[in-house]
Amino acid sequence: MGLEIDFVVLGSGPAGRRAAVQAAKLGKSVLVVDNRARVGGVSVHTGTIPSKTLRETALNLSGWRERGFYGRAYRVKRQIDGSDLSARLGKTLTHEIEVLEHQFARNGVLTMVGQARFVSPTQIAVTSPAGEQVVEAARVLIAVGTAPHRPSAIPFDGRTVLDSDEFIQNPSVPRSLVVVGGGVIGLEYATIMSALDVPVTLIEPRGRILEFIDSEVVDHLVHQLRDQGMRLLLGTELERIELIGGTPVCRLSDGRSVRSDMVLYAAGRQGATAGLNLAACGLETDARGRIAVDPQTYQSAVPHIYAAGDVIGWPSLASTSMEQGRAAACHAFAQPLPSGAEHFPIGIYAVPELSSVGLSEAAARAKGLTYECGIARFRETSRGHIMGVGCGILKLLFDLPSRRLLGVHIIGEGATELVHIGQAAIALGGTIDYFIDHSFNYPTLAEAYKIAALDAWNRLRQHEGQVVELRAISSQ
Amino acid sequence: MGLEIDFVVLGSGPAGRRAAVQAAKLGKSVLVVDNRARVGGVSVHTGTIPSKTLRETALNLSGWRERGFYGRAYRVKRQIDGSDLSARLGKTLTHEIEVLEHQFARNGVLTMVGQARFVSPTQIAVTSPAGEQVVEAARVLIAVGTAPHRPSAIPFDGRTVLDSDEFIQNPSVPRSLVVVGGGVIGLEYATIMSALDVPVTLIEPRGRILEFIDSEVVDHLVHQLRDQGMRLLLGTELERIELIGGTPVCRLSDGRSVRSDMVLYAAGRQGATAGLNLAACGLETDARGRIAVDPQTYQSAVPHIYAAGDVIGWPSLASTSMEQGRAAACHAFAQPLPSGAEHFPIGIYAVPELSSVGLSEAAARAKGLTYECGIARFRETSRGHIMGVGCGILKLLFDLPSRRLLGVHIIGEGATELVHIGQAAIALGGTIDYFIDHSFNYPTLAEAYKIAALDAWNRLRQHEGQVVELRAISSQ
Repeated sequence: MGLEIDFVVLGSGPAGRRAAVQAAKLGKSVLVVDNRARVGGVSVHTGTIPSKTLRETALNLSGWRERGFYGRAYRVKRQIDGSDLSARLGKTLTHEIEVLEHQFARNGVLTMVGQARFVSPTQIAVTSPAGEQVVEAARVLIAVGTAPHRPSAIPFDGRTVLDSDEFIQNPSVPRSLVVVGGGVIGLEYATIMSALDVPVTLIEPRGRILEFIDSEVVDHLVHQLRDQGMRLLLGTELERIELIGGTPVCRLSDGRSVRSDMVLYAAGRQGATAGLNLAACGLETDARGRIAVDPQTYQSAVPHIYAAGDVIGWPSLASTSMEQGRAAACHAFAQPLPSGAEHFPIGIYAVPELSSVGLSEAAARAKGLTYECGIARFRETSRGHIMGVGCGILKLLFDLPSRRLLGVHIIGEGATELVHIGQAAIALGGTIDYFIDHSFNYPTLAEAYKIAALDAWNRLRQHEGQVVELRAISSQ
Repeated sequence: MGLEIDFVVLGSGPAGRRAAVQAAKLGKSVLVVDNRARVGGVSVHTGTIPSKTLRETALNLSGWRERGFYGRAYRVKRQIDGSDLSARLGKTLTHEIEVLEHQFARNGVLTMVGQARFVSPTQIAVTSPAGEQVVEAARVLIAVGTAPHRPSAIPFDGRTVLDSDEFIQNPSVPRSLVVVGGGVIGLEYATIMSALDVPVTLIEPRGRILEFIDSEVVDHLVHQLRDQGMRLLLGTELERIELIGGTPVCRLSDGRSVRSDMVLYAAGRQGATAGLNLAACGLETDARGRIAVDPQTYQSAVPHIYAAGDVIGWPSLASTSMEQGRAAACHAFAQPLPSGAEHFPIGIYAVPELSSVGLSEAAARAKGLTYECGIARFRETSRGHIMGVGCGILKLLFDLPSRRLLGVHIIGEGATELVHIGQAAIALGGTIDYFIDHSFNYPTLAEAYKIAALDAWNRLRQHEGQVVELRAISSQ
């Protein structure tokens, strides 16, 4: 008989980490198993943290934020190469991992390095170079995350044709780049490289990118990207990649070809469930290796086994994964479920940033709501002038009868921070009057909320005017 | 008989501008009189906008935000001089003024350049090089702002001994700087110059700076400033300034002397009311030229005359001045007063930034409230690591019985933006549970709210534990 544990967590990314700490705080014995030598999961090693660090480094070294003032040719550092990008990455990663390890140690969370495999619904074998150990688990959370989707027809070589994990593990600055896949990951890397003045071509089979984001904001993004020189080939499929004299050439479904120094293949990720032997615990995955769960409790089809994070699919954000992990741990040990998951924000760390919370126009229409919008451009704020911000919009949706804020959609510098003002207003029942009556620090980008609210208010008055007019006519 | 106007606004700064537009939107005839050739008031010409532009330029060129990563010696531009600072300033100012002029034109607001002077309570003479014109005013708003306090004993020469208006009108980078006065203006310029590696000495007669800000946050600021090499002489008075061989030497009340390349005298400003001939309308000012008003309606002792903005004193922020101007215009024309003025934020654009909304610990104690605090350090957030942020704290105060957020106090990059998340929560009745249950974009600095809330929550649980324990004892 092996080790007996209240809560075995497979994976130490945002979902696993948060679940483990939550269960430990409830006094449970917790073991985290990860097949990486160091904790953190995809988020720390090849996902959120490295890509955001790369972004910050690229913006600093390229002087991107200051180009509004100093012109498009402005660069802080003339020649930017891979070593510039790597230096800061290593420093940030080490720090992140130390924080995580310290957090586990402080809360008495056990950790084990190795590949986990179900032997029975309650028994998990962990294989490491040191041998195999079997653990008896009262409750299990599967939070193993995802791995890049690598179709066999794509000639990955880790040098000129890369998946997104390879791309970030050893970042370099190619002379030209094709990115296949206009999802969040593809878009983030494509725009970061474009900010470094790399000619970038983005290939996406769908006719639109980021379909879950308000289309007006996406239109603004597409315009902005094309304006800064990125080539977006939407509605076009990649047929194959040929290596001609060592240089990759992408052949497209419309007959066109794109030759580039490097191809980043970022068309989808798959649940990293292949090695778990899920058959032994009675679970199945979908074609992409993902596990289905109850969207409130994160319980899988097998009641004592939970799944959270990227392995369950949408929205696959570090922030939501943490809350899922926490909710799963609460449910596993009969604690009340946290509320508030309804109003989670989406943050996309492209250049420029996008962030969104609540309803888009399309979603409001689908719900049959009557609403009015207000828009502010960052350049209308004094802070925007001072920062030399060229792009950036903030769009608010207000419910017509109740005047309550329904949705916030932001593109531009600081979007991921600013969205939380609107998130609080939505969750706490704030109306358009909140933004009109309260003062905002001057100068800030946050003032865009007031400007957008005034814009919506002017349109609301027009509605009211029409209503008054109609009443006057009908009472004649 | 001269021009007859519904609303004459003296001054075109934030208060005057907002009042004028509000009254125009209500269909009133509005005239703005300003003795500067171009609109905007102190805010645009020598106040908020230039100082914040100077700050942004200094941070960009010095690479201050990136020093956490690249070390204290890191600079984007080796030699930074006055022309670097001026270039961006001119561009921003021109843009701001154009926006204002356009706003006045669009709303049909009349403008007149010249010095205004009361002839009677309802008659105002405007003197300009072109001559004098008398205007008949049904309602008046005095929003003339302030001018630097210039004691006759101080040997101002516009070159080595300057007031804050002179300092910003022609910014230069001295080899060393003494700043007299640790108020908001003195502190902002002292810290901006310190970020440019100028050795700075700050002299303040009071024993503490920024007494209206939570003392824990101010302690953090003072530590940070001393750590980056600024000399703070608190509780020390300036006796006189001598010019020795053209170099200013400050003689202090404690017998010490400080020699420096330049002295910025920033000890107070005075209401710019001297030329208004207030006697003719029946108004008086205090010793500092300020006008007393009703704090809700901004009505002065003379019912049809209002005053708003810096000329009425505390808090003298562009943001609050705008709301005051709007409230005055609403009251003058019998519109309902806007609500929400209670929860206004304070923003101080020092390096690092400070911002605050709601109650400080001292204020909560004075009200007899029971509360608990939670603190997060920016370096505890992943965004903080990625940005290489060294300093920065966010402090939250929660009311004990109701769990509601009472106050937010932030120091560090982005403080003036981040405070608005807490402002919404305070105004809309948000509790500690809001921050614990909602997900935040990852990585953001906004996550500091969650970290601080969890910190407070851990302390609250200890209270609850104690309460349970005490109950257990008393029931034995």
